Formats: sequence, structure tokens, C-alpha cells
Amino acid sequence: MGVDFELTAEQKKLKYQTREFAREVLRPAAEMADAQPDPQEAFRAMKPVYEQAAAMGMHTMFLPKEYGGGGATNVNFLIAIEELCAIDPGFPTILLVNGLALMPLLWFGTDQQREKWIGRATADTRGDFLAGWAVSERGGTANFDHPSPRAGIQLTADHDRSRGQYVLNGEKHWPCNSGGWDLRGADVNLCIVRTDRAQGGKTGLSAILVERDTPGIEYEVIDKMAHRACQNVTMTFHGARVPEENLLAEGDGDLVINRNFTWSAPIASIAAVGVARGAYEFALKWSKTYTGGGSSPIINHQAVGNLLTEIAAKIEAGRYFCWKAAHYMDKFGDQGHALGGMNKTFCGDLMQSVVFDCMRVVGVNALDRKFPMDKFYREAAVFSLYDAGNLAMQRRRAWGVMADRSFSPDTFVDSEPLEFTKSMEGYGVITEIG
Amino acid sequence: MGVDFELTAEQKKLKYQTREFAREVLRPAAEMADAQPDPQEAFRAMKPVYEQAAAMGMHTMFLPKEYGGGGATNVNFLIAIEELCAIDPGFPTILLVNGLALMPLLWFGTDQQREKWIGRATADTRGDFLAGWAVSERGGTANFDHPSPRAGIQLTADHDRSRGQYVLNGEKHWPCNSGGWDLRGADVNLCIVRTDRAQGGKTGLSAILVERDTPGIEYEVIDKMAHRACQNVTMTFHGARVPEENLLAEGDGDLVINRNFTWSAPIASIAAVGVARGAYEFALKWSKTYTGGGSSPIINHQAVGNLLTEIAAKIEAGRYFCWKAAHYMDKFGDQGHALGGMNKTFCGDLMQSVVFDCMRVVGVNALDRKFPMDKFYREAAVFSLYDAGNLAMQRRRAWGVMADRSFSPDTFVDSEPLEFTKSMEGYGVITEIG
Amino acid sequence: MGVDFELTAEQKKLKYQTREFAREVLRPAAEMADAQPDPQEAFRAMKPVYEQAAAMGMHTMFLPKEYGGGGATNVNFLIAIEELCAIDPGFPTILLVNGLALMPLLWFGTDQQREKWIGRATADTRGDFLAGWAVSERGGTANFDHPSPRAGIQLTADHDRSRGQYVLNGEKHWPCNSGGWDLRGADVNLCIVRTDRAQGGKTGLSAILVERDTPGIEYEVIDKMAHRACQNVTMTFHGARVPEENLLAEGDGDLVINRNFTWSAPIASIAAVGVARGAYEFALKWSKTYTGGGSSPIINHQAVGNLLTEIAAKIEAGRYFCWKAAHYMDKFGDQGHALGGMNKTFCGDLMQSVVFDCMRVVGVNALDRKFPMDKFYREAAVFSLYDAGNLAMQRRRAWGVMADRSFSPDTFVDSEPLEFTKSMEGYGVITEIG
Amino acid sequence: MGVDFELTAEQKKLKYQTREFAREVLRPAAEMADAQPDPQEAFRAMKPVYEQAAAMGMHTMFLPKEYGGGGATNVNFLIAIEELCAIDPGFPTILLVNGLALMPLLWFGTDQQREKWIGRATADTRGDFLAGWAVSERGGTANFDHPSPRAGIQLTADHDRSRGQYVLNGEKHWPCNSGGWDLRGADVNLCIVRTDRAQGGKTGLSAILVERDTPGIEYEVIDKMAHRACQNVTMTFHGARVPEENLLAEGDGDLVINRNFTWSAPIASIAAVGVARGAYEFALKWSKTYTGGGSSPIINHQAVGNLLTEIAAKIEAGRYFCWKAAHYMDKFGDQGHALGGMNKTFCGDLMQSVVFDCMRVVGVNALDRKFPMDKFYREAAVFSLYDAGNLAMQRRRAWGVMADRSFSPDTFVDSEPLEFTKSMEGYGVITEIG
Repeated sequence: MGVDFELTAEQKKLKYQTREFAREVLRPAAEMADAQPDPQEAFRAMKPVYEQAAAMGMHTMFLPKEYGGGGATNVNFLIAIEELCAIDPGFPTILLVNGLALMPLLWFGTDQQREKWIGRATADTRGDFLAGWAVSERGGTANFDHPSPRAGIQLTADHDRSRGQYVLNGEKHWPCNSGGWDLRGADVNLCIVRTDRAQGGKTGLSAILVERDTPGIEYEVIDKMAHRACQNVTMTFHGARVPEENLLAEGDGDLVINRNFTWSAPIASIAAVGVARGAYEFALKWSKTYTGGGSSPIINHQAVGNLLTEIAAKIEAGRYFCWKAAHYMDKFGDQGHALGGMNKTFCGDLMQSVVFDCMRVVGVNALDRKFPMDKFYREAAVFSLYDAGNLAMQRRRAWGVMADRSFSPDTFVDSEPLEFTKSMEGYGVITEIG
Repeated sequence: MGVDFELTAEQKKLKYQTREFAREVLRPAAEMADAQPDPQEAFRAMKPVYEQAAAMGMHTMFLPKEYGGGGATNVNFLIAIEELCAIDPGFPTILLVNGLALMPLLWFGTDQQREKWIGRATADTRGDFLAGWAVSERGGTANFDHPSPRAGIQLTADHDRSRGQYVLNGEKHWPCNSGGWDLRGADVNLCIVRTDRAQGGKTGLSAILVERDTPGIEYEVIDKMAHRACQNVTMTFHGARVPEENLLAEGDGDLVINRNFTWSAPIASIAAVGVARGAYEFALKWSKTYTGGGSSPIINHQAVGNLLTEIAAKIEAGRYFCWKAAHYMDKFGDQGHALGGMNKTFCGDLMQSVVFDCMRVVGVNALDRKFPMDKFYREAAVFSLYDAGNLAMQRRRAWGVMADRSFSPDTFVDSEPLEFTKSMEGYGVITEIG
Repeated sequence: MGVDFELTAEQKKLKYQTREFAREVLRPAAEMADAQPDPQEAFRAMKPVYEQAAAMGMHTMFLPKEYGGGGATNVNFLIAIEELCAIDPGFPTILLVNGLALMPLLWFGTDQQREKWIGRATADTRGDFLAGWAVSERGGTANFDHPSPRAGIQLTADHDRSRGQYVLNGEKHWPCNSGGWDLRGADVNLCIVRTDRAQGGKTGLSAILVERDTPGIEYEVIDKMAHRACQNVTMTFHGARVPEENLLAEGDGDLVINRNFTWSAPIASIAAVGVARGAYEFALKWSKTYTGGGSSPIINHQAVGNLLTEIAAKIEAGRYFCWKAAHYMDKFGDQGHALGGMNKTFCGDLMQSVVFDCMRVVGVNALDRKFPMDKFYREAAVFSLYDAGNLAMQRRRAWGVMADRSFSPDTFVDSEPLEFTKSMEGYGVITEIG
Repeated sequence: MGVDFELTAEQKKLKYQTREFAREVLRPAAEMADAQPDPQEAFRAMKPVYEQAAAMGMHTMFLPKEYGGGGATNVNFLIAIEELCAIDPGFPTILLVNGLALMPLLWFGTDQQREKWIGRATADTRGDFLAGWAVSERGGTANFDHPSPRAGIQLTADHDRSRGQYVLNGEKHWPCNSGGWDLRGADVNLCIVRTDRAQGGKTGLSAILVERDTPGIEYEVIDKMAHRACQNVTMTFHGARVPEENLLAEGDGDLVINRNFTWSAPIASIAAVGVARGAYEFALKWSKTYTGGGSSPIINHQAVGNLLTEIAAKIEAGRYFCWKAAHYMDKFGDQGHALGGMNKTFCGDLMQSVVFDCMRVVGVNALDRKFPMDKFYREAAVFSLYDAGNLAMQRRRAWGVMADRSFSPDTFVDSEPLEFTKSMEGYGVITEIG
């Protein structure tokens, strides 16, 4: 009751168990995956780690108990994610994306859809169930709520009522988990599709569940500079047919996108914090042993000492902001649109610079691939760019809320509800040339 | 139990009552004080406001119930301070300094000292009791823990055992509240003095309580660019005699300084947040009405919308970091040395830039004195510089803790105790020239 | 020939003569003006300084020799402006605004207009000739090139052909110099007016010269937080009649605005650099004498030493960027649209933070009004906000150029010409809501 | 005469010829080298490129004509380096290090030494002459001027007078070029050695030229995250014997280090600018073609347009600051100690963030290895860390100069000389714990 920052015994247990898993199981696999030149091989190399995580319930921990999930709060999920990301942020992205694919069923799906698909995930005994989230396209996704049907999402789903199916044509670029362990597809992919070719993004979009091995879909893996432990693909649809009962959020695909990227925002934010913390832990140790050729450890120099206090301060500030956003979403059914956007842009952008500051502490040796700074530096570039890029998508979502009459600077601090409406969409999609 | 950001009903009541007081009572007085050219007149003009605040118990709200105070937690004190500072940060500095003068009695005083002096404050019925905190000196205070007795604090207190008194000679520069409403002195001033002329700052310093109207003390008011609602003075001691029972923390004046500036750090931090929030509230309203000569409010432009989301994000991040620091201190008897230092340097430095960002939203009209941006901008410069300046003192305290073997990056997030020891002092006092 | 940063003997003479004037003549007057509560009194107090400057030819130094001016290059004008601004940036704004009022005659005026009005300025023997530049309006000016005639500039000038006059109605807010020494008007004001009530800002605007003592105009002085040595007013037109031969740039008022704020951009930029340099000079001296209670000057601490090197580096970088922009404009008839915008946004925003960094070096004493930091801090807030605010106007101008096909990253470094066209205008004036 | 930013026809020719070489010859080789997992193979793959560069005189262009070099000014060398670095900064580092090894002969060597060793470099007809610069050690080098002989440089050179040789024992870590194309050593390595085991770094150090194939030296290549086109090694000395006539700067090895890192500072700075410019060119093109799923290129969005203007502004500002530093050094025999340090810390730190800003423009596709952003991002991390790391070494050098009484804020702008003395060394080497 009231403001409280003290972890419960259970939360501490979650934290330290996850840390042990991250250090003992995840670290060696992630380092190998990172060095693996073939991106699909890198992803596949994580399968044993994933199976162990699944055995601990990690891959469905955020799904509600009602459907067999772990029932973790957003705050608790963040605690686990930070620990994983302090070692490797690519692997927990697999978990996060399971959520991006399945959480929308809670918010927009029918009970049958929930039971079937969430049920499958939580019933997984092999420990390899994957759900993919397919929204991004090659031409870009930031303007998904553009009023023109020729802008934004271009993967079409035409209703073939005669056969009770939707026929999908087009391409997704960057969807995560979607290719599955063997490039035959994730067990299920939640795809944002244009179900109305005549309507703009606020009404023409829907979501649809596409099962593994659906004919007419090809996957090609993208070779990324970081987060190599997870898989991103180009996914091409050539008249792929999907049962009509797999459709959800008809005409509300825009809301699926916004709500998903709100839910994931504090997760991506704490992931950025986790990577920065990993770099900070290394830099702090380094500063207490390395002397820079002097007569005592470099932390004893004011420039190093001060920089480390700034690094630590930013990580602390970032973390509690993430917790706040997660806590707010715990209260309001995973909603917290502007707060999530603020959280992600703040943490994603700041933590990249924190990691570079850690490299400045370490000095030239940070460039040596035998030390982990190379990897932290690359991983840290991801957070501002993925999961709804900060420059456009995340800031736009916060902007749309803040521009609304209903918004008050007290909303979040007072934990008051804030309804996200379609009128808050579409900010910045029309270019500004007079 | 567990991480929680929801204000209790009582906390919300505190927040909104304080806000009402700030808007209705404080605002008009503070604006007049700010415009008043004579600094002592500016301070005196706040007396009626202070009396009203005292009637509400505000001036001793942070003192323990045991001694007649309000028993507010640090978190609750922060809630009130933010509201006051969103209107004017000078006035709540008077309250804060009452704490800097009296809280050390809890930590270092005898029971008699506590009962007498805290008792006087809480028994005040006129509503004008002031306690001053006198540590800074003209030559600077950052190096108070320097190993040389000729460095750091130079106000001497020589023990005249024959008369059971200490004889004080020297000067304090910048002490707050110390001159009192009439320049005859605050009701009591807690002064850091050098009781051992042969020892460095880690062992040669003590604290002593100096009563109002003690002969041999002069006060001259400093004319400041901001925080004009509170009083800072030069305080000169010419053989002022103080009863020996007023001494506390003998040989531990250094610890008094560190503990005090730890306790006040989140308060100064939330004050910075409060000022930034005041500026943000104005800028947000402005952006929803002002069009910049265009055809709709400027918030509809992406540059303005995005900047406002960044402003809001920084304020949110800053606030919860302050709450965390205060909560930690609530758990550990007001201790939290590195965390406080991190909190203040992070918020103090960041919020100055946030206020300037708010001015960028408002544009050239921010320069017009009829709008409040002029004042917010000046007030915002204070936080990095006062209450143990960030560049040296606050960073040094965090640095000393972090350089210690006992420090772990998990300490604060896990709410684990961290003992501050004299070995953590003295960082950066020896200059680095080889 | 070729890249050269060495000042000629003449340039050094200009620099050090201006410095002497700034220190001996300007400083005492500017300090008094800054402290003067009445803004018009503050401005009037600068008249003797202005007269001395005029006797040295300073007030028309930038006008071409052909018309009796000093013929100073932009680079040389910058050298002088930096020296003045290191002491006080308000006063040189008076000079700058003379240019904003008269330089457009060179670019857009007829020979008669040039001879008459520039001639008057350069023939001034009393040393009090003032020219005002009136573009800003109360509702904002950033969107002056908006396609709607109801947006942007709303001061109308209706052509009364029968009497050979334009009739002006409306208001300007923030024009500088415009009220003149006695609130009867500057000797001449160059006003941007809407001459076509049916056209948007790209074609509906013109410029017109309004002589002192023109009936139907009122002036009210704005009370600013900084730059108090110059005058900004609200200027109200009630059917003021102006001879039609005073019109220039008919239908091209937009280009007058853009070209003017291009020309002034490096001047405003070097002004920001000058203020920062003034603060830096004070902080550097302070750091070499003040000990912060330690045993040697604070510059011997690494945190202070490093911060000072960063301050100095930013000032050096800023200055040469200004020189580059001025040099480019010297080559291309005062044009250099994107480069000017980049220069001003870079320097204006950065130098505000540099001044605050200087305050961090000085510490709490920076808050004492007896030291100059208070003034530097307030002055430094102006540059991002005035003279076409950075957030919108200056960035928009650079943006429009960069978005054009003709723009190359080599343009400026190669000193190649770049034609500014109306197609580069209008960026960002339509708000982005879909 | 006087301030001039216009490139001569010759300078433009140098720029565009170098650009053509960089795009046509360097680019394909550098991309392959970057992808090559074995670092020595990566380096060797650059040999044909180096030979072509040598044929154009590039590898000795900065050496004086008197000794057969190209006689390029520092400014001209910078023009070439920027062009190379816009494509790949690893390769030009090879050229730069030739200078770090041979330029000290001009400043500290005898005429015989100059003729012999510079002569060899310039007489090279095979086009593969390499000179290495070996200063850094595993324990760190930042405190090379520490007063203790057990701190700083630990590679010892004991004088065996009987045989007219110095005997070298110890290790260098990170020297560049030093292993040569075949790990038998660069043609010559200039090594900083401790010739006096009893003296601190200000007097105990010297420089010595070590010829290729000297027995008793082993090389191991460091696997770096960036700048893979150049070679850094660990170089171990087991009683390697060097003729005594190869010694220079006896007792002044500290000055060799400082002067070298002053000379290279603007080169490293323009390299950072070059990398940022390469990223900016890509991002600018991207912004004019990619739509982000909207209806026009993303540069038409204000957030993107504004960010690009900021990116361009920082690159412009950085470049002219580099030119200034180089020009100053051209005037003063390659000296300009504080200015070089300021230049490198400013550009190195800023350009890393500029490259990340370019990635923010590009968005998630910046993570795709098929685009060049991955490489730019990694390369950009190097400049703050190598060539005397900014946090300590470069800032220390500027600090020591600025703390000196002789320093004036006018020194550099006025192109006045500034003598660097040993009294300016040693700042920050003694840690600050009291």
C-alpha cells in the first residue's frame, strides 16, 4: 500500500534464479550465437537454451494463469527480462515476441481463440513453442495509421467467403520468431493485414493468426548486427489461405499495433537498462582493477569516478521508470499508451549512450573482441530502432495522447486511467510540406 | 508489499492540499518576493505564507512524532515538496533547511538535545520558528574532508573548559535561514565548526547549536538570482560564546555534512523535478493554444509534440528516481549516501535542461517577464549548484561509496543496507597534479 | 588563398579595439541597464554608448561603402560582435537590427530606396540613427509561409492607389529597435506586411519602410528577462499611411524574411559564442583562484579541468563554424540559407548549455548577483528563441534546403552556390495530423 | 590572407581524387576486410590498396619534401583523410601511423636519423613500407608521465655501452602497423621505452627505432570490433638488441608522446567527422527515398528533417574545428597541444552520437548487415578510445595547458604560439584520495 520499491521475497527469488540461468545457461550459448556468421544457425543454437527456459516456464510466464500461463505481472516480467538482458538481449526477445503474438488474443480475441492458441503455447511440453509477430513491412510501418489505403500496411487479406478463408498476399519484413526453428514457420504468427483495400489504416486493418506450415509462405532470415540470438525474417505470402475464424480485431488492426507496442515498451525499456547494466558491471569491475599505467585503479581518478556515478544514476533512473510503466499497465489491463512511449524513448536512447560511456571507462581495450563491450555496444543500438522505432512510432503514440484534451500531467503519477482512442492516432503521418 | 507506485488516499490528499496551498497562498507571495529588489525584504514577505504553512504543520512535518513533529516519511515529504516547487522552490527551501538543522539531532544528538531543540520547533505556536544550517564558507566547502586542518571548514570553536563554552570565530557564507526574519538569527543555527585545529576534516570537525541573539554574530543577506523567497546570508562570528552542551557529533562533523546532504538530496531532486513540472505545465498549455501563426496549435507540429514527450518522459523518470531514493532512506534511517548523490546529480542537471526545453516550446515569448518562464529558468539553475554542488560534493559522495569494495550494483535495487564510513570520504580532495 | 584561420593585422585591430570599447564603455552602461526595472529606461540608458559606437562607425559598419557604410565583411562584423557580446549581447543587437532593417534594401530594394534610406543611416551625424525590423506578430511568425492567407503575417497593407499609399492595420509583437529612443519610432522600420489578403505567405507578403512619426502607430515596450539593453516593442497600426514608393519585395516578403534570418544567423550564432566566452573567461579565472576549501585552485581537480576543456572546445568549435557561415555569405551576397540555419541552431542551443557548465565550475557563488553569471545565464537563453526561433524557423529553413534535390553534403565545404527558392519554403507549416 | 574557407583548386583536386580512390579502390577491399574473421588476414587484404595508395604518394604525403615526402600541410592531409574515412577509417589509420612513427624524427631526431628512416619510407618503390608506433602497454598508458618509475611505460631499454646497444624487455599492447604485413615487424617501429629505471615518466623515457626482423620480438594480432583494415598487435620484447644510434629524445619520451598525440589529434578528429559524414550521406539518401510506409519520403516529416539538419550542423562544425587545429599546427611546427586535445575530444565524442543519430533516421533497417550502418556504428566507437583516449589522455593534455598561467582564451583564435612544457604534464596522474 502506497509507494514501495522493495522487492518481495518471491521477486528476489525470481531475480536471482533468472540471473543464475542467464549466467550459467544463456551466456555461453549467446556468445556462440553472436559469433556465428549464419543468422539462422545463430538462432537455432539457442533452441536448447529456450527449452531449458521453457522448462522453467519462462516462455509463457506472462500469459494469464486462466489459460495455463505463469500469470506474471508486468513488473515481475521486467525483473526477469533485466537479468537476461544483462547477459544477452537477443534471447529474451524471443520470449517478448511470444507475448506480442499472444497477448492481443487477450485484448481482442474471442474466448475460443484464446483457449486454442494460448492453450497451445502453455501446453507445450517439448519446450519449443514459438509465436511470431508480423507487422513490419519493407517500405516501413511507422505510418500504419495513414488515411490512405495505399500507405502503411500492404499485406492484404481478402475474404473468400465461399471457402471461409482469408487469402494473404504480400510481404512482412523484420517479423521476429516468425520463421520458426526450421524456417517452416513459428507455431503461430499473428499478422497485421489489410482486410479492407479501400480504407485507411485506422479502419482497414485487422489481425490474423497464421499457423505453421501454411502453404504459400516463404521465410528468409535477416543478417543483423546485434540481437543475433533471435530471428528476424522476410516473410512472403503468395495466396496463403487462412481460416476465417483466425481473424481478430477486424478493422482494429491499428489498435492491436498500438496496444502491442505499448505493452512491450517497458519490456524493451528494461531490456535497454539490462544491457547498460551489463556494460556497467563490467566497467565497474574494470575500473577497480585496471590502473591505466598509474599507481592505483582508475576508479580513483575523478573523471572515471564521476562518470561511473553518472552511469549508475542513469541506470537507476531508467529502471524505476520502467517499473512505474509496468506497474501502471498492471493496473490498467496492459494499457498505458503515452507512458509506454515515453518510457521506451527515454530508456532506449539514453542507454545507448550509457553503454558508450562504459566503453569510455574501459578505454581502448573496449575495442578488443575478447571483452564483452563490442557486443554490448552493438546490442545497445537496437532498442531505439526496433519494436516501434523511437523517432517516429513511439514518440507519435505519446504525442497523440498528450495532444488530447483528456491528458493531464497528473494522469500517470496519480495512476489514473487514460483511454486510448482512434482520435489519438495518425499524428505525424501526413507530411508537413505546405 | 512489493513494487508499488500507487499513492494512498492520504498521499493524494497531501498532494492536492499542498497544491491548493501552493497555488492560492504561495504563488502570489512568491511572485512578489521574486520581484522585490531587496533580498531580506523578499524573505520577510514570505513570513505570512510561512505562518500559514506552519498552521498546517508543514514546517515540522518531517520531524518524528516522538518529538512532536508530523512524522512524515521521506516519500511523503517529497510529494509535498514537488507541489510547492511547481509554484516556487524558494519557499520550500525554508522548510528543507529546518530539516538540515534539526534532523542531525536525531542522528547525532543526545536525547536532551533532541527534546530541547526539536521540541522548541514543534512547540512553536507563532508559526515562525526557523532553524538554520551553516556549513558553507566563502572559500568553499567541497573539500571539507581534506586531510589538512588548514583546508575545508575554517570556522573555529575553541573549548573554554573553564566557562563550559565554545568560542566561535570565523565566517559562514551561504547558510540558509540563518539570519532569521529580522537578522537577529534563526531560532537556532546548526553550525559545522572546527573543534580541533590540528586535525583534518575527517576528525577535526563537530556540529554546534547556536541560539538566536547569541552575541558576537553578524548577518549580511546575499542577493541571489533565484530562490529569492528564502534567505542566504554571510554569518560572521567574533568570539561568539556557545554553551558546551550544544555540541554534537564531536569529531564527526564530516559525517553530519555527508548525512545531511544525503537526506536532502532527494528533496533537492524532487524540487528540481517540481520546477521542471511547473515549466512543463505552462509549456503544454501554451502548445495547445498558441498557433505560431499557423492554422492549429503548435503541439500539432511534430517537433513540438516530440519535444513535449521528451520533457514529460524526463520528468516522469526523475520523479520516480526521487521516490526510490526517499523510500530507500525511509527504510534505512535517512541513509542512502551514493543513491542520494546519484539522484541529485541526475535530477539537478537534467531538469535545468528540461526547463530550457520548455522555453523552446514556448518560443520567444518565454523571454517576456509577464510569463513565468523567466522565473522557472532562473530557479532551475539552483539545483546543480546548491545543497552540496553536484560537480564536486554530490558526485564525490557517490564516488566514494562506489569505489568501496562493499558496493554492489544490486545494493539499491535490492534495498540492501550500505554503511557509509569515513574511508569513503576524501575522494578528490587532493588535487591530481603529479 | 586556401583555408586560412589567421586574422589579418586589421582584423586583430578591429577585435582589440572593439574589446576595449566593450570593456570600458559598454560594460558599465550595460550592467546598469540590466538592473534598471523599466525596460524603456534601460534602452535609453544605452544611447550614449550607441553614440560612441556610431562615432566609431559601428552602427553602419556592415553597410556597403557604396552607400556610405563601413563595408565590413560578414566575417569582420562577427569579429566585432563576439567582442561586444562577451560583455553584453543586448547592445550589439541594436546594431544587428539596423542591418535587418537596411540590408534587405540591398537585396530587394530599388536604387532610390537604397540611396535614400541607407544614405540616411550612414549620413547620421548625431549618432542616434535607428532602423527597426518588424516581422513577428503576437500569434507567432514561424508559419509565415503557410498557404492560408489567414495564417502567418496578419499586418495588412492595403493599397490606396488613389493616394499612392499603403494603409497599414494590425500589430507587430517583438520588433526590435522599432520604438526608437523616445517611443516615437525608429528613424525607419522595415515591416513585413500582407499586401494580398487572398494569397498565402509565399506570394501574399511584401516589405515596406515606415518612417518615424508616421501617424497611427503606437509602441509599447516589452519587459524582457535578458537583452535588456535593446528594445522590443508591441507596435500597433491603426490605419497608418505609408507612401507606395516605400514598398519593396512585392509578393516576396517571404524571401525577405528568409534572407534576413539567413544573414543574421551567423551574427546571432557568434553572439551566443560571445556570451559563452564571457562566462568561460570568468569561470576560468575563478577556477585558478578559488580553492573550494581545498589546498589549491579548483582547476587542479580533474572534474573541473576536464569540464573547462570541454567548455573551451565547444566555444572554439562554435566560433569557427560561425566564421565559415559568414565567409560563405561573403562569397554569395549574404546568402547561405541552410548553412545559416544550421549554424544558429547549433550555436544557440549549445552555448546555453556551455554557460550553465561555466556556472557549474563556479558553483554556488554563480547564484550571487554580484557576479556576472546571473546575467550571462539569462542572456544565453535568448539565442535559441529570438531572431527566428531555432525549434521551428531556423530548422525549417535548413530542412527545406536539405530536402531539395539540388542539395549536396559537399555544397558548403566546397563553397558552391546554392539557390534558395520558394519551393524550399513551407516545410512544417501544415500540421501532421492524419 | 585573413580568414578563408575556400579550398584552392589543388585542394579540391586532392579531395575528389582521394574520394574516387576511396570509393573505387578502398571500399570493396575494406568491406571484405571488415567481414574477414581473422584480423591479420583482414590487414593483409589491404596490401594491394596500400600499394595503390603508395603509388599515388599517399603513404608519405605528410613527410617533408626535404626528405622526399609529399610535403602536404596538415590541412591538406585532413582533406584526404576525411575522404578516405567516409568510406573506411581503418585503412587511413595505417597512413596516420606511418606519421606517428616518422614525424617525431623531424621534431626530436638527428639529421642522420631523419635521412635514414624518413628516406627509406619515401624511397619505397614496392609500395609496402610500414612504420609502426609503439607506445601503449597492457596496463595502460594514460599515466605515462606519472612521477613513479614503476608507473607508466614499463618497456625497458637498458644501455649496453660495451656493445653500443640498447636491450629491450617488456611488452607493447595495441601498437599499430607494428607487426608488418607478415608479422615479422613493420619496416621500422618507433617505441617509447624507459631508459632510466629510476626516474618518473617526465624524465625516464626515450624513443627508439626498432628495425624489422630484429631478433627477440614477437607479434600477436588483436581482434578488434572495428578499424579491422589496420593492424594492432601485442609486441613482446625478450632482450631485443637495438643499435644505440637509433635512440632519440633521450629523457624526453614524454614529450614525444604528447607531441605525437597532438599532431594526430586533428587527423583522428577529421577521421571521426569522415565516418559521421559517410553515415550522414547514407541516411540523407535513405530519407529521400524511403517512405516509412507513408505517402512521401521520410525527410518530409519534421522529426526526420530536423534531425538531419542537426546531423549536418554537427559535421560542419566538427570539420572546421579540425581545419582550424590543423592550420594552427601548420603554423607552429605541428604543435598545438591544448587545441588538438580539445579538437579530438569534441569530435571523437560527438561524432559517435552523430552516427547513432543517422541510424535513428534509417530506423530498424540500420541493423541489417547488408547496409553500411553496422560498420559505421562500430567504426565510430573507436575515435574516443584510441590514439590517446579522450577521457584521460587527450583531456589531460588540454587541461595541463589551460591550467598554466600562460594560457589565454585568445591564444588559438589569435594564432599565437603556445609553448608546451613539462610543467604542463602530469595532471591527473596522482589519484585524488585524501
